[in-house]
Amino acid sequence: MAIIIQKFGGTSVADADKIKQAARRVIKATKKGYQVVVVASARGKQTDQLIADAHELNPNPPERELDQLLSTGEQQTVSLFAMALEAMGYKAISFTGAQIRMVTDSVHTKARIISIDSKRIHKELDEGKIVLVAGYQGIDKNGNVTTLGRGGSDTSAMALATALKAEECEIYTDVDGIYTTDPRLFGDAAKMERISYDEMLELSSLGANVMHTRAVEFGKKYDVKIHVRNSLKEDKGTIVTHEVPRMEDVVVSGATLQKELAKVDLINVDNKPGNAAKVFSHLAKAKVIINDIVQTEVSTEKANLSFTVDAAELKAAKETVEKIKDEVNCQNIFIRDDIAEVSVVGVGMRTHYGVADKLFSALAEAKVNIDSITTSEIRISCIVDKGQSKKALRAVCRAFELDKPAEQRKQTS
Amino acid sequence: MAIIIQKFGGTSVADADKIKQAARRVIKATKKGYQVVVVASARGKQTDQLIADAHELNPNPPERELDQLLSTGEQQTVSLFAMALEAMGYKAISFTGAQIRMVTDSVHTKARIISIDSKRIHKELDEGKIVLVAGYQGIDKNGNVTTLGRGGSDTSAMALATALKAEECEIYTDVDGIYTTDPRLFGDAAKMERISYDEMLELSSLGANVMHTRAVEFGKKYDVKIHVRNSLKEDKGTIVTHEVPRMEDVVVSGATLQKELAKVDLINVDNKPGNAAKVFSHLAKAKVIINDIVQTEVSTEKANLSFTVDAAELKAAKETVEKIKDEVNCQNIFIRDDIAEVSVVGVGMRTHYGVADKLFSALAEAKVNIDSITTSEIRISCIVDKGQSKKALRAVCRAFELDKPAEQRKQTS
Repeated sequence: MAIIIQKFGGTSVADADKIKQAARRVIKATKKGYQVVVVASARGKQTDQLIADAHELNPNPPERELDQLLSTGEQQTVSLFAMALEAMGYKAISFTGAQIRMVTDSVHTKARIISIDSKRIHKELDEGKIVLVAGYQGIDKNGNVTTLGRGGSDTSAMALATALKAEECEIYTDVDGIYTTDPRLFGDAAKMERISYDEMLELSSLGANVMHTRAVEFGKKYDVKIHVRNSLKEDKGTIVTHEVPRMEDVVVSGATLQKELAKVDLINVDNKPGNAAKVFSHLAKAKVIINDIVQTEVSTEKANLSFTVDAAELKAAKETVEKIKDEVNCQNIFIRDDIAEVSVVGVGMRTHYGVADKLFSALAEAKVNIDSITTSEIRISCIVDKGQSKKALRAVCRAFELDKPAEQRKQTS
Repeated sequence: MAIIIQKFGGTSVADADKIKQAARRVIKATKKGYQVVVVASARGKQTDQLIADAHELNPNPPERELDQLLSTGEQQTVSLFAMALEAMGYKAISFTGAQIRMVTDSVHTKARIISIDSKRIHKELDEGKIVLVAGYQGIDKNGNVTTLGRGGSDTSAMALATALKAEECEIYTDVDGIYTTDPRLFGDAAKMERISYDEMLELSSLGANVMHTRAVEFGKKYDVKIHVRNSLKEDKGTIVTHEVPRMEDVVVSGATLQKELAKVDLINVDNKPGNAAKVFSHLAKAKVIINDIVQTEVSTEKANLSFTVDAAELKAAKETVEKIKDEVNCQNIFIRDDIAEVSVVGVGMRTHYGVADKLFSALAEAKVNIDSITTSEIRISCIVDKGQSKKALRAVCRAFELDKPAEQRKQTS
C-alpha cells in the first residue's frame, strides 16, 4: 500500500474544530487507500506561550531544557489528534520523536536528523492504524530531547517521507499554494501548479515563507514530491518536484520583493588578494549573515566592495566594517537602508537570454532606477529605492505575465 | 553523599514565583550537602485543562493517548524548574519518566512501576547537578508513555527514594503536615510529629487526603522515611515512618470524619453459605466500591447484611441490590443517605483495651446516637447521623486530647 505524509502547521490544528477538520482530511486519504502518517506542529500560539513561561524564569534558558519544554507542544497535538480520529471511528496512534527514534545530533534548538526507525511505524500502519508523529523534535544518542529549529515540522515530514518511501508529502497550510509573487503586493498573482526545488529554494531564501529552506533542501536531496495546499480547501495546491521537461518552457516562475534590506559599500579598498576574505571573516565572526556580494574593480590598485544584509543586521555590519576600514585601506563607507530588492526566479533562465533585457526594460518603463544587480543561475535581483519597490515588483510581474498560469504566457526569447 | 528526594505538588509549582520558591528550597538542601532529586507535578490546573481539551475531541479518549497527553504537564514543570535553578547559578537537568527508564506495566492511566534505571541519575548527581524527574509517568516495555493514576507523583517520589536509597523523601504540600484531625472541623487539631505508615494508611483511606494511599504503601514496603511539610514554611512537618517503641504509648493518633456516605441494609436475608458472596459479587460487577460490611445473625435461618458506600455510589448499589433481592430471599431493603462515619485511628489500640469505652462514652455524653460500629486492628468507626457528625468528631477529639501533642496526653488504659 502506498504511504502518504500529511503535515499540518500550527494554524491548522489551533483548536478542537481545526483538529477535527484536519482529521477528516486524513480520513479522506485513508479512504482513497493510502496508509497515512500525520506530522503536526504545536497548536496555535502554544510554543510562544511556553517560550514566555521559560523567559519568566530564565532570560537565557539552557537549550537542552528549552527543547525538553517546547517538544511538549507537538506531543500534545498528536495525542489530541489521535483522540479525534478514534472518536470518528478510526484506529490511530501517536508518537513523539523519541518513540520512533528520530535520532539527531546534539545541537539543541537546531538539531539535524541522522536516522529514523521506521519499523514501528510500518508495523502500526500494517495493523490498519493512522500514525501521528510529533513534528519538530528528535532525540540525540543519549536520549536528550532535541528540536529541529524554525520550520522543523516540515523537516520532520520530509525525513519521514524519505524513510518510509512515501508517494507524496502534503504540507497543509493557510494559503492555497505557492504564488508567482506575494498576492498582498500584486493582487493578480497566479497560483503555480508546479515549481522545481531550486526555484522554491530561491523563493524561500528571498522571503516567500511558505516552507522553510531546509525542508525544501531535504526534499530535493531525497527526491520527495511535495504538495503545498490549503487545509481548508479541496483544491490542488502547488507541487514541488524535480524539473520536468515542460518546466523548461517557463522562463520566469515567480518574483519576490525583499524590503527589510540594507546595503554597505566599501569604496576604494586596496585591490589585493585576501582583502575581501578579511572583511567577510570579520563579519562572520560578528555573526552577520550576508545576502549578496558585489566586487568591482575601480583601477588596478583599487576596488569597491558592496554587500547587502537584512535590515536587522545593519548595526552589527556597520560596526564591523568601521573597525577594519583602515586595515583594508578603505577610503570611504556608504550605508543605504532605504533600499529593496526585486528578484525574478526561474529554471528556464539557464537557456533563455532575453530575461535580463525584459526585466531591465520593464523597470525602465516604470521609471524605476536600478542601484545594482546580482544574479544566480536561476535568479536575477535588482536593488532599487524602497519607495519605488512595490511599483517595481508590479511592473516586473506584468512584464513576465505572472498573473497568468504558466502555459498561457508568451515565450521570452 | 546522602541523597534526598523533594516532591512538589501542583500548587507548589503553579506559577513562576512558586517555582522560584521551590527552587530556593532545593538549593538550601544542596547547601546542607545533600544530592537532591526533585519530583514535580504538573503546574496548577494544567492537567485539568488538558483533560478538558481531550474531552472536547473525544468523550472517551483512548487511555494510551490520554497518558501521552497528560505526561506533558510534568515534563513542562521539570524543564522550567531546571531553568529556574540554572538562573540561580546551579547546574540542573530534567528527565521524563522515559528518559530515566521508569518502566511500568502497560495498564494505562494507573500503571505500576516495575523498575528504574538509576545509573543516569547517579551520573548527573555525581557531576554536581540537581536532577529533576517528571512525576506521575513512566514507559512500558514497548516505549508507550504510561501514567500512575491519582497521587502518582507521590508514588514516583517513593520509587526514586527506594531506587536511589535516599535518606528521606520530602513531600511538599500546602499544609503544615498531618493533623490529628481535619483542622477545618476541629480548629484545635494538633500537628503530629510522627505517624506510622499503618496509621497514615487508615487516615488516607478515611479521606485525609495529604498523600495517596498507594504512595504510603510503597513507603511502608520499602521503608522510605517520608517527611510531609509545607512548601512555604521552614518548620518541620510530620515524619511518616515504621513504628518506633515510643509510638506505642500513643493510643489514638488521629480522628476522621467521612460525610459523603450512604448505608444499605438488607433485612432478613436467608442465612446460608454463599448468599453474602452473591450480593458482593454482583456489586463488584457493577463496579461499586464497598467501604465497610457488617453481617449479623437474626436467627438460625435469617441474617441482616449491611454495607456502606460513598454517596456517589449509592445509586448503582441500590439498583444492584434491588435486582438480586429475591435471589437471596431478602425481606426488605433500607437505604440511609443521611449518615456519616467518625473514626479513631492508632497503632496503640492493639495493646490498649480502653479505647472503645472512651469513644462510646464521649459520644454518649455528647448525646450522639451510634447506628453501627466497625473495627480494624488500628481503627474504630461509628456510623452516626450526618446532622450530629461534627459534634461527634469534636467530642471524640476532646476525649482523646487530639488538640495536644502526643506526649502531653493522659494515658488511656
